[in-house]
Amino acid sequence: MARLVPVADPADPRLADYVRLRDVNLRKSLEAEHGLFVAEGEKVIRRAVAAGHPVRSLLMARRWAGPLSDLLDGLDVPVYIVDDATMEGLVGFQVHRGALASLERLPLPQAGALVAGARRVLVLEDLVDHGNVGAIFRCAAALGVDAVVLSPRCADPLYRRSVKVSMGAVFAIPYARMDDWHGGLADLRAAGFTLLALTPDPSAVPLDKAPAGEKTALMLGSEGDGLSSRWLHEADEAVRIPMSPDATSAGVDSLNVVAAAAIACYSLVHTPRL
Amino acid sequence: MARLVPVADPADPRLADYVRLRDVNLRKSLEAEHGLFVAEGEKVIRRAVAAGHPVRSLLMARRWAGPLSDLLDGLDVPVYIVDDATMEGLVGFQVHRGALASLERLPLPQAGALVAGARRVLVLEDLVDHGNVGAIFRCAAALGVDAVVLSPRCADPLYRRSVKVSMGAVFAIPYARMDDWHGGLADLRAAGFTLLALTPDPSAVPLDKAPAGEKTALMLGSEGDGLSSRWLHEADEAVRIPMSPDATSAGVDSLNVVAAAAIACYSLVHTPRL
Repeated sequence: MARLVPVADPADPRLADYVRLRDVNLRKSLEAEHGLFVAEGEKVIRRAVAAGHPVRSLLMARRWAGPLSDLLDGLDVPVYIVDDATMEGLVGFQVHRGALASLERLPLPQAGALVAGARRVLVLEDLVDHGNVGAIFRCAAALGVDAVVLSPRCADPLYRRSVKVSMGAVFAIPYARMDDWHGGLADLRAAGFTLLALTPDPSAVPLDKAPAGEKTALMLGSEGDGLSSRWLHEADEAVRIPMSPDATSAGVDSLNVVAAAAIACYSLVHTPRL
Repeated sequence: MARLVPVADPADPRLADYVRLRDVNLRKSLEAEHGLFVAEGEKVIRRAVAAGHPVRSLLMARRWAGPLSDLLDGLDVPVYIVDDATMEGLVGFQVHRGALASLERLPLPQAGALVAGARRVLVLEDLVDHGNVGAIFRCAAALGVDAVVLSPRCADPLYRRSVKVSMGAVFAIPYARMDDWHGGLADLRAAGFTLLALTPDPSAVPLDKAPAGEKTALMLGSEGDGLSSRWLHEADEAVRIPMSPDATSAGVDSLNVVAAAAIACYSLVHTPRL
């Protein structure tokens, strides 16, 4: 049974897991060093626990302990109880969803092992925005993509904002991170995947005319620049989402990466293939 | 040729068009009263002007006058030049994209007239979030939807954030606002549209099996509650985006409204129909 521990000082070292949650650089090194991540909000915390992540501690205003009492009953960890001012002083903003949890990361599978049993895979190259990564995981999980492979520099799916925007989908879909960007696609090709590169290039093949394969990996590039030329070159086919000619003439001929990913995942799962 | 007018006081009445841009209630009444809206950022301002919206004034730090000089040369309006502190004091946040413009709204067409020549229409019921409305307009324009019809209470596409997130797509796709929510779908039916209601209901027809029609109107509901029961009842068919059974069992069985709209627009335009 979890222990409620009131804490008044935002600088109390017992709260160190939760410090400055919007400071991406600080969080990156802190979370790597301690192998932790932070989940925000009751629903997401429950999903993280259900996915098997050991809990280090929780942090919340006292009024949130009631709604979470069934969860807390099953945990043998401290629950730090703070007032709103202490919370804001510690994490750096007003936490509207009430509760935070610090959880342990689990070892990720190797990319090759991850995709061995998969048929439809999303590959994300160097996405920068954590919200976009979370939203793409949500689309991939909801639509039935089997796994996600990340480039070495792609934004972290377990960063607080990724987890939150994903609504916990980062716990529902297995993923791996490539060790090596340069040769990272080789594992996928070796596993029998057809590699499709999503691009706005008008000379690419429309998504629904993409070559059919038993196993398909769809590659999405970063928000600003799209896929690297190396990955575009390594793909079996460049594919595009067809844009309206009217939109092209009006200069509104692109989608944001989440909308593009949603359509790509839908097409990946629902376009009839051989 | 536009006149550069330095202003130092954020309370200067000449800057009244730009006051407190994040105060939705204030902006709603101010913009309705004066028939104006605010565009942010060079690209979006250029698209608003190109779409025929008369400019009332511009507001920017001096360093932005250079990149916009060709546009300013063709306008006979004041360009208020402020420093960053005055800008922030006036609008209520740091403006990263540099320039703002106040432009005149144009009369919207009647919904019936708007859809007379359209084949594929999106109908938005009571969306609350301006960013979502902007993102959906971007999807609709890019993918080739012909027009958008808004319910009487749907968030304003010309609110600053809608315009910004749409990347100017709100100027590229024609739209109308229904006068009457209760009977608002009658105009669409009278114009020969098949009405499809997008819903997460598992008993609905999968999107790509939706009844084909010469003219199709796809209805999207608000972020929290989806479509009203009245509109669901009035639809010819309820349609859904198929969710993965694995996702359903993991509780990650929904998409955010923008991802759903992206897939729905794509399917509306690309699913072969009779």
